[in-house]
Order: sequence, then structure tokens, then C-alpha cells
Amino acid sequence: MTSQEVAAKEEGASGGEDYHDHAPAAKDYRDPPPVPLIDLPELGQWSFYRAIIAEFIATLLFLYITVLTIIGHNSQPDPCARVGLLGIAWAVGGMIFVLVYCTAGISGTLTHSFLPLASLGAICGVALVKAFQESYYTRYGGGANTINPAYSTGTGLGAEIIGTFVLVYTVFSATDPKRNARDSHVPVLAPLPIGFAVFIVHLATIPITGTGINPARSFGAAVIFNEEKPWDDHWIFWVGPFVGAAAAAFFYQKVMRAGTNNAFWSFSNKGGS
Amino acid sequence: MTSQEVAAKEEGASGGEDYHDHAPAAKDYRDPPPVPLIDLPELGQWSFYRAIIAEFIATLLFLYITVLTIIGHNSQPDPCARVGLLGIAWAVGGMIFVLVYCTAGISGTLTHSFLPLASLGAICGVALVKAFQESYYTRYGGGANTINPAYSTGTGLGAEIIGTFVLVYTVFSATDPKRNARDSHVPVLAPLPIGFAVFIVHLATIPITGTGINPARSFGAAVIFNEEKPWDDHWIFWVGPFVGAAAAAFFYQKVMRAGTNNAFWSFSNKGGS
Amino acid sequence: MTSQEVAAKEEGASGGEDYHDHAPAAKDYRDPPPVPLIDLPELGQWSFYRAIIAEFIATLLFLYITVLTIIGHNSQPDPCARVGLLGIAWAVGGMIFVLVYCTAGISGTLTHSFLPLASLGAICGVALVKAFQESYYTRYGGGANTINPAYSTGTGLGAEIIGTFVLVYTVFSATDPKRNARDSHVPVLAPLPIGFAVFIVHLATIPITGTGINPARSFGAAVIFNEEKPWDDHWIFWVGPFVGAAAAAFFYQKVMRAGTNNAFWSFSNKGGS
Amino acid sequence: MTSQEVAAKEEGASGGEDYHDHAPAAKDYRDPPPVPLIDLPELGQWSFYRAIIAEFIATLLFLYITVLTIIGHNSQPDPCARVGLLGIAWAVGGMIFVLVYCTAGISGTLTHSFLPLASLGAICGVALVKAFQESYYTRYGGGANTINPAYSTGTGLGAEIIGTFVLVYTVFSATDPKRNARDSHVPVLAPLPIGFAVFIVHLATIPITGTGINPARSFGAAVIFNEEKPWDDHWIFWVGPFVGAAAAAFFYQKVMRAGTNNAFWSFSNKGGS
Repeated sequence: MTSQEVAAKEEGASGGEDYHDHAPAAKDYRDPPPVPLIDLPELGQWSFYRAIIAEFIATLLFLYITVLTIIGHNSQPDPCARVGLLGIAWAVGGMIFVLVYCTAGISGTLTHSFLPLASLGAICGVALVKAFQESYYTRYGGGANTINPAYSTGTGLGAEIIGTFVLVYTVFSATDPKRNARDSHVPVLAPLPIGFAVFIVHLATIPITGTGINPARSFGAAVIFNEEKPWDDHWIFWVGPFVGAAAAAFFYQKVMRAGTNNAFWSFSNKGGS
Repeated sequence: MTSQEVAAKEEGASGGEDYHDHAPAAKDYRDPPPVPLIDLPELGQWSFYRAIIAEFIATLLFLYITVLTIIGHNSQPDPCARVGLLGIAWAVGGMIFVLVYCTAGISGTLTHSFLPLASLGAICGVALVKAFQESYYTRYGGGANTINPAYSTGTGLGAEIIGTFVLVYTVFSATDPKRNARDSHVPVLAPLPIGFAVFIVHLATIPITGTGINPARSFGAAVIFNEEKPWDDHWIFWVGPFVGAAAAAFFYQKVMRAGTNNAFWSFSNKGGS
Repeated sequence: MTSQEVAAKEEGASGGEDYHDHAPAAKDYRDPPPVPLIDLPELGQWSFYRAIIAEFIATLLFLYITVLTIIGHNSQPDPCARVGLLGIAWAVGGMIFVLVYCTAGISGTLTHSFLPLASLGAICGVALVKAFQESYYTRYGGGANTINPAYSTGTGLGAEIIGTFVLVYTVFSATDPKRNARDSHVPVLAPLPIGFAVFIVHLATIPITGTGINPARSFGAAVIFNEEKPWDDHWIFWVGPFVGAAAAAFFYQKVMRAGTNNAFWSFSNKGGS
Repeated sequence: MTSQEVAAKEEGASGGEDYHDHAPAAKDYRDPPPVPLIDLPELGQWSFYRAIIAEFIATLLFLYITVLTIIGHNSQPDPCARVGLLGIAWAVGGMIFVLVYCTAGISGTLTHSFLPLASLGAICGVALVKAFQESYYTRYGGGANTINPAYSTGTGLGAEIIGTFVLVYTVFSATDPKRNARDSHVPVLAPLPIGFAVFIVHLATIPITGTGINPARSFGAAVIFNEEKPWDDHWIFWVGPFVGAAAAAFFYQKVMRAGTNNAFWSFSNKGGS
């Protein structure tokens, strides 16, 4: 999206003289020309390494806080001194809200993220929890994702696919530059619905899979916990999220945005610009 | 609202030359001329079919996630491993928040929605849950709305009417183009109070009816669950929401907006524009 | 605040020609001249009656939803089928958020509200709950405020005073036109912190007084419940809120805004405007 | 940040004539020249004393409300009449949200706060709770922070360090004037992620330390409770927050902002301004 923004900016600059003549049209949005998937000059820039470090730290903090919440919940003998499933779901969703808010380039971080770095961050975050409280960590499962034995593999895979669909559809909706240009609520609230989507998917699927919808998170927890059951089920937490994300991307690009493109096309023909 | 926005835009365009002369007046809003209820040219446009598909997918996801949450809650033997009634209410209200945020034309989706498509989406969403976990689904009631035997039919109908009133009044307040033009907080927050209204109505009425306030949702759950009690009570989940929505529409249009119209009229006379 | 906004608008209009010359100063704010407490011409306007009706309906809905939540919580034999104290606090705070959002003139509704109309709305809201489910209503206390016998009167009065202080201080902060003009987050979020303040004060003081901090709410519940204990304690729910609100008003006007006035004064002298 | 804003305003004023020529560039941001740590002329201004008083009152209200919530939770014999750990976490996080929202200069209050005044406010807030309900206060621990005996000192210190890191990193992200100038969601939402960060850190670390991450809060509770265990552990609630805050400041300034500086530098060279 960084490059899209730059393109949008350049477009705006070249059209700057028209700015005051057609003020009411200024809110309409034109897609930037297609950009190459990997922006090679970025590799030489500090901003590239900064994004990697930010992602590493964000995933580390995310796993540390959420696994700590899960273990704190499980280790309390008194049910009244537990945060409950609802508290765990809030910790996960709220942490995503905070981290999306803090890492400025929202889509940068979420849509073409650096999975290896995120996985490393996840491993370190869980390792930190284990280092501080090893006995609790081992006894209480360490936040590793497995299919609840009461459910079939198909149910778990379905839950991961649809859960990831909900999240990725929300991320696309929140970071679509065309929507941002039109509706004031879209960019302002953006981190909030992303966090809520994560929160709600946890309410629905914690009882089934413990909720993955994030391969880096599932991988980090599996590496540090390192027992048989999480590794046996582990493929579900890669296949599910990838299928769900691909379906959401297809749906958003081919159905939701396709219509907007057409609508825009007819509008810009009418306007003659 | 789409057509209203276009009307507002055209109005703005024709008055464009005055724009810089009377800058402080630019925030006032004039109602667009009345538009026909059904916009026929829309039928030939992709944007029309996109809205239908978006509504189908949104209702499907909504029912899948919320019924999964309800069943997950009911199926846990350990009370501490449940999300609780509060968690269910959050799942429903939060999902409405996310889906309203994601479907750009907020009022389009909510005020003149395509009920048959929404019902179909609801049926498919619940069917998906049943397909994945049939035994749990049947045992734990499948999210179908019924009147709790401890309450009378009148109490249930009243709860549905007033609950829908709260929701529809909030939707009207959030999507009123006149308010949007005046108060910066209205359009920016819009999806949030709509989600909160749904959340709160669930806290108040889950114990009475399981909370319908949405005929498509009640219908979808009744079709797939297909037992006697939900069908016996089913009329309540159509009559209640329709009466509540009609009352809210009457109240908003005749009381809340009537005043603004008058006030605007006197103001525009004074200003001479 | 309506009259303040009009004053601000007029000021802006007279200074309109300077608008483009001193653009960076446009965000500074000058207090309007003092206005009479009661704006007599308003009495002949529809907008005045609309505000009264809106307040009546809002308080009715508020009491109906929150008392229903309380009774639904108390009447469930299974603790897992209750929304919990947390759910009750959310219902109250969330409803305030929604209603503040829906009634456009935020401060109009909250700072110089029409207490008799609000009380009538509260009575009708509770009466509606009682009409629908009389046996539950009587058995589960009907949401009437009393001092928990485990606490002294002084503790209850203190809780009401400080709780109201937190709410009214938040309302003043959210509706201060000077802050609105400077900080973009203030007017946009406004209804949210007001709702959260109500939510949090409930978390802290439900165990002590059931939380009043709103004389109309306490009065409506006491009238319909009409038993000895709530009437004995009733003075606390008028004295507490009035003392707390007066203290918050004094603090905000004399401490928080006084400083801003001085700062503004010295700035406007420097700027020579 | 007050002085930074003034600097930004002055810069804007001197460049005012260029404003309309290069409109699209107006959103870019240039760092103000370094300012002395303590702004001496401020000492003679009312705004300085106002900030101190506001901080004192804010900390007092914060401790009063949160300790009241903790004691109310602990003192209820019926688990269903408790707000739960989740309710306590909401009270703390929500109160921070409200208070950050209410005290206009967000960063002023949070980044270079007046620790002595905040500590005094904390002492008075806890004292108020104790004055009103002394027996409960003593029996239920008074909100004083200690390491849960089930965990080691290292675990507690680590939890305080990382918890404070999450909070301070969020505060830096929310109050960074460079981000504010670029992304519309940053300044508008600001108080919300700060409140959520506090909420989530409580979910994760209440079971370990009761959650400090704020030396004034821990000190105030320790002074009034005044027993051996909280004093023995007290150093953790100063060392932890200071190490965590320093690490977050280092990370934000040297990693997150360094990159932006470089990017800006190359951009401004290209632009020739």
C-alpha cells in the first residue's frame, strides 16, 4: 500500500492545478497503475528493515501477552479468579487492535507481511513465557493450537477457513484506498474492526481449535511446546488460514471491488475527466 | 442513501462557484428531492448485484459465527470454559459492527435490505454449522429463537418490538445525511453504535426470546433446526421486528427529523439562500 | 451549547473575509459572549419540543433495557446463563453511549436536561417492564437503588458523589467547544468516553448502591417498585448526584477552563486580533 | 508535545503563503528544532499549575474507582455477584481511556508527567476508599501490588517490564506528531488504544503481580495499605516500569522513528525544500 499511496500522491500532484476548480470531485478515487509485487529499491532502505523489526517485535509481544493470559487463566484454582474464555478472546483481539494501531502502515503489516520474521517473533514470545514460568507453561498447554478431540478434523479445518475469511475480508475492507477516499469512517476506525474480527472469531472457535487464523502464531506455539498432538494437527493451521485468506482475497477483489471499478468507470466517462 | 448522496453531490456541484464565498455555510445540509422507492436503472448495474452478493455473504458469515459461538458455549461441560451469555452478546453485536463497517453503504445494507437474499444467506450459514457438527447442533438448539417458557408470549413480543426499535432508531440516527453533514462524530463512529445497540438488546432479551430483532436470522435458524416450538413462536420474530422498525421509522421521520426540517427552513429563509 | 454554536458560527461569518489570510489561526477558538440561561425564543420552536420528546423516549428506552437486563440476570437459576455484573454494567454504559450518539446535541441532552421529562420517561420505562413481567419484577427488585446493608450511608453517598463527578467531568470534557475546536479526537469520540465513564462507575459502585448517578433513573425505579427501603435511601440518589455534578462543574470551569482562557488571552494579545 | 505543537504552528505560519501552491505536500511533517527538556517560562503560567492539578485529580479518581472495584469484587460472597477479573481489567483500562480523553494534552500527561503529584493523587484516592470502608479495605488487600507467591520474582519483574513496554510503545505511537500528521486514524482514536493496552496488560499480568506498570499507582496503594509484603516487593514496581518505559522509548526513537527521519530526509532533499 505504501507504493499505492505514493502513486496516489503523485497523481494528486500532477492534477494539482485542477484542485480548486472541481473541489466536489476531489473525494473520488482512481486506482494507481499496477505495481510490481516486490519493490526492489525498498531493499536498500531503512524503512524496509524497520518494517521487519517492527513485525518481529509486534509478534513477540502478541504471543507473550496472549500466552501469558491463557496460562494465567488455566493456572488459577478459583474460577472467580480467572479472566475466562471471554477474557482470553479480549486479550487476543485487543492486542491485535493495539498493534495494528501502532504499526502505521496497517496494510503493509497485515497483507504482505514477512511470515518468517513473524514466526521468529512468535517463537521468541512463547519462549519468553516458558523461560519465566516453565512448570506452568508445560502443565497448561502453552497456547498451542490443537483440534479439540470432541470435534472432527473437518470441523476444525472449516472453522479455521471461515475464521480467516472473516479476518482477511475485514482487513481488505479496512485498507482499501478507494473506500478510504470516500467514507470518512473507514480509515479512522480501521484498527478497531480488525481487532473485533479477531476477538469474535476467538469467541466462536476457541472451543474447537483454540483459534489459529495466523500461521506464525500457531507455529511459534508449536515449536516451543513441541509435543505430538499440536504437530499432528499443525497442517490445519497453515492450510486453513491460506485457503480462507485466498478465498477472502478473491471475493474482495473479484466481487466487491470489481463493482466499484465499473461504477467508477461509468462515472469518470460521464464527468469526462 | 446512495441516490441521496448523488443528489447531494449534484447540488454541491451546481453551487460550486459559491463555495469559497460562503465557506461557513458549507456545513449546512439541504434535503435532496424525493426519490422513487426503487431505482430502476440500478437493476442493470453491477453495483446492484454486488450489494445482493455482499448481503448474502454477510448474513452467512453472521449466522455461522454466532451459531457456532452459541453451540460452543452450550457444549462445554466446564462453566469456566464457556464464553457466557456476555460472550454470545459480544459475538452478535461485534459481528454486526464488523459487517456494517465492511459493507460500505451502511444504510443501503441495513434500511432497504434484500430480505430474501439475507434469509438465504442465513439458511446457508446455519446449514454450514449443522454440516460440520450435526450432533452438537441438534442437541444444543441451533440458535433457533423461541419464547422462554418462563415468559408469556406478550412479554416476548414486547421485547422484540422495543429491541428492534432501539436498533432501527440507532440505524436511522447513524445514517441520517443531515446529521452526517453537521456533526463530525456521526459518520465516523456509525458502525460502532449500531453494533453496540445489537449487543445491548441481546444482554436484555436473550433470557426472554434468545433475541431475534432480525427476521432473516430467525428464519434461517428455524428452517435448519426445523422443530415444532421454534415454528410455533416464529410469527413473533416477524411481527415484532416489523412493528418495532415501523415505530422507529415513524418516530425518527416525524419527530426527530421534522424538527430539523423546520429549523432548517427558518434558517435558510433568514440566510436568504 | 446550541446557542454557543450559533454564536461561534456568527463570529466565523463576520470574520469570513480573513479566513484565507490567517488560515493557521482558524483552529483557535474564542468564547462566545455569555448567553442567558434560558433561551426564551426557543420555547416557540419545534426543536424545543423535539428535544423534550427525544429525552422522554431516550430515558424510557434506557430504563426498559437496563431493568430488563437486571431482572433477566437475577431470574436465571443457572449462573452460567447470566450476563453477570459485568453484563449489567455493559448494558447501562453501552445504552448511554448509543443514546448520546443518537441524540445529536450531546451537551443539550446531558448538561441542561429536562429532569421532569426524564423522570417521566424513566417511570414509563420501568412501568413497561413491570407490565410485561410483574412477578419477576417484584421478586427481583426492579432495578431500584438502595444502599447495600453491608455498607454505611456515608460510603454510599461518597460513591454517588465521586461516581457522578467522574461522569460529569467526562461530559464537560467531551462537549467543551474550545477543546472540540483544537483536538480532532475530542468531538469524534465524544459519545464513547461518556458511555465508558458510566460503565466503569457501575463496575465500581453496583456492589454498594446499585449505582444511581442519575436522579431520573433512581426516581423512576423507586416510583414503580414503591417499597420502603428504596424510598428511605432515596435522598442519597439526589444529593449525591447534585453534589458530584456541582463539584465537577466547579472543577472544570474554574480549574480546567480558567487556564485555557488565560492562555488564549495572552495568545490573542500577541496575535493582535 | 505542547512546545512541539507551537513550533509546528510557527513553521506553518511562516510558510503560510506557500500553503495553496503545494497543497498535496501540506500533510508532510517536519520535526521541530530540539527544545529544552524543561520549558522555564511555563513555570509562571496558569497552564502549568492546571496540568499539575489535573494530574492530581486524575490519579485520585483512577485509584478511587479501581480500588473500589477490586474491593467490591473480593467482598461479594456470591461469585455471580462479582465483576470478575475481566471486570477489574475493564475498570482499569476504561478509566485510563476516559482520563486520557479528558486531559487534552495527551502526551503532556503521560510522557513527562509529574510523578510526585501523581503519587500524591494516588495516595489520596486509596485513602478515600479506606476512609469510607476501612474493614473491607484491610481484609481485601486494598489493591496493593505484590508478587503472587506461586511465581518467582523474576517472572514478576519480567511481566512488569514487558507490560510497561506495551503501554509506553502504544503511548509513543499514539502521540507521535509525525504519525498524527499523516494518518487520520492516529490522533482520532489515540485514547482508545492506550486504554486497551492497559486493559490487556491487566488480563495478562493480574494473576502474577496484580499489575503495576505505573509507579504512582503502586506507591499510593502501598503507602495506605502499609504491610510488609507489598513493601518487600515494592522495588519491582519501580524498576520494572522504568526499565520497560526506557526500552520502549529507545525502541520507538531509535528504530521506529529513525527510519521515518531518514525517509523524510531523502524526500525533502528530492523536493528541494
